[in-house]
Amino acid sequence: MSLLVIGSVAFDAIDTPFGSTGKIVGGAASYISLATTLLHKNVGLVAVVGDDFDFNFVDTLKSRGTDVSGLQIKAGEKSFFWHGKYRMDMNSRDTLVTELNVLGDFDPIIPENWQQPEFVMLGNLSPQVQLTTLDRLTKKPKLVVLDTMNFWMDIALEDLKAVLKRVDVLTINDEEARQLSGEYSLVKAARVIRAMGPQTLIIKKGEHGALLFGESQEGKEQVFFCPALPLEEVFDPTGAGDTFAGGFIGYLASVDRTDFEAMKTAIVYGSAMASYCVEQFGTTKLAAITEDDLRFRLLQFKSLMSVEA
Amino acid sequence: MSLLVIGSVAFDAIDTPFGSTGKIVGGAASYISLATTLLHKNVGLVAVVGDDFDFNFVDTLKSRGTDVSGLQIKAGEKSFFWHGKYRMDMNSRDTLVTELNVLGDFDPIIPENWQQPEFVMLGNLSPQVQLTTLDRLTKKPKLVVLDTMNFWMDIALEDLKAVLKRVDVLTINDEEARQLSGEYSLVKAARVIRAMGPQTLIIKKGEHGALLFGESQEGKEQVFFCPALPLEEVFDPTGAGDTFAGGFIGYLASVDRTDFEAMKTAIVYGSAMASYCVEQFGTTKLAAITEDDLRFRLLQFKSLMSVEA
Repeated sequence: MSLLVIGSVAFDAIDTPFGSTGKIVGGAASYISLATTLLHKNVGLVAVVGDDFDFNFVDTLKSRGTDVSGLQIKAGEKSFFWHGKYRMDMNSRDTLVTELNVLGDFDPIIPENWQQPEFVMLGNLSPQVQLTTLDRLTKKPKLVVLDTMNFWMDIALEDLKAVLKRVDVLTINDEEARQLSGEYSLVKAARVIRAMGPQTLIIKKGEHGALLFGESQEGKEQVFFCPALPLEEVFDPTGAGDTFAGGFIGYLASVDRTDFEAMKTAIVYGSAMASYCVEQFGTTKLAAITEDDLRFRLLQFKSLMSVEA
Repeated sequence: MSLLVIGSVAFDAIDTPFGSTGKIVGGAASYISLATTLLHKNVGLVAVVGDDFDFNFVDTLKSRGTDVSGLQIKAGEKSFFWHGKYRMDMNSRDTLVTELNVLGDFDPIIPENWQQPEFVMLGNLSPQVQLTTLDRLTKKPKLVVLDTMNFWMDIALEDLKAVLKRVDVLTINDEEARQLSGEYSLVKAARVIRAMGPQTLIIKKGEHGALLFGESQEGKEQVFFCPALPLEEVFDPTGAGDTFAGGFIGYLASVDRTDFEAMKTAIVYGSAMASYCVEQFGTTKLAAITEDDLRFRLLQFKSLMSVEA
């Protein structure tokens, strides 16, 4: 199945209690592309970078099976840059610097052969760009997954609500679910948010796992919980949510399914990949893992979750 | 299998953002006894109350199958009393009043026919009383489960360490695990705490579920995660941890098993009961549920946790 990924491809600088990176490759679509191509090779990327970008990383994406023909390179411009600092608990972070650069006027041009994708992953970006992307598709996809964040709820809520009407799955964290719905209980929040458009809602809770709210093919409300793997060290949580989303949609595209049961398995795949992602700074670990590594971790999840009848 | 329960039987007053109770029945052993006897009838209680206590509740315990011959009633004295107030998130609470009363010099006298129990649940109490209880048993039990809290780590750490050497399972929350071990990572914390004595550690994370760290019969490190059921409303978390522990050991006693696989199932039973406990103030809901209610919720957990291979 063809899977279109749109999102930021960028530079990050990350400070944690355990160390700091210089400028390294980051961006939602970088993580998503690496995660999806571990499972599925028919992946097209739409993104924009400046000519300051690290083109070795673009070669990595290509060698992993991402079609980068939709990656715009703006001569004389700089790539998006984010500098963040994690607090001691590694769950909360402060933004020190955001330089939009090429992302400020990003026009998501979709190559002609990518205008009818079956699966679409709208990585965290301005809801307006996410909407434009959907407008430019010439056929309705089987499944559209959207990731967003509190920033867009603060400054572009109406645009966000417009794009929510047109997606099948939304992924946000627990605080964002509370903000978007105005409900503290996540069960109530899920009901409010699903009424805004997406039939399925994934609430990411970081080290506390993820909740999947949706419905069965018979239309019955369903809920599934996937834990996060307890880890000895969390080195850098950056990109974990993007990796999770990439693993999720990558699995669904690889099996060509969009039902709730398949989404449950897809969440486990996403969580397994995210558990690798956080073990090193940036995309390093995610770019290095193999299908065998993934299988190993899926077995760990099985052991973590399964119980006698 | 005979199951001995020791802990507080007391009065609570609870303030939440949704309302306040007057003086109602509470105490760790009250919740534990109600939970265990839903699964298992051979339960003996050792505790102390004043003659101000609500003896209708004692009748409830009896009618549910708890042998209350070890419940001391101190004439002219008052029962232990705790008054707490939950914050808006219902996860954190402040203690407004603690009156030790009869608990101040509690001497855990064990009726002769309860001195050789096969299963022992040491509810949250002073580690010194927990130690004395173990000293008074005339035969080593198959399984001793201990619950404690940060308060005892602050004021009686050496006693706590002494009793930890003699128990099989410890249940504490995530912050307590970090305090006791000096490790932030729960995986590392579990290793440190298990080296203090208990072969098995349960880390309770409230609305974020519970982690079980232990080992297989072949001596291999194992970890299992049980989610909390996502609820529309959490009305009163008081006693949820005690109910969880009671459901856990009650299940194990009912099947006469102490292996890791059985403990996984036992945690699901404990979580299912705790999910009912929080739906009303105090012991009300827990005292009202039936085996059918429990079975219904176990099915909800199954659906929440199970995934295609």
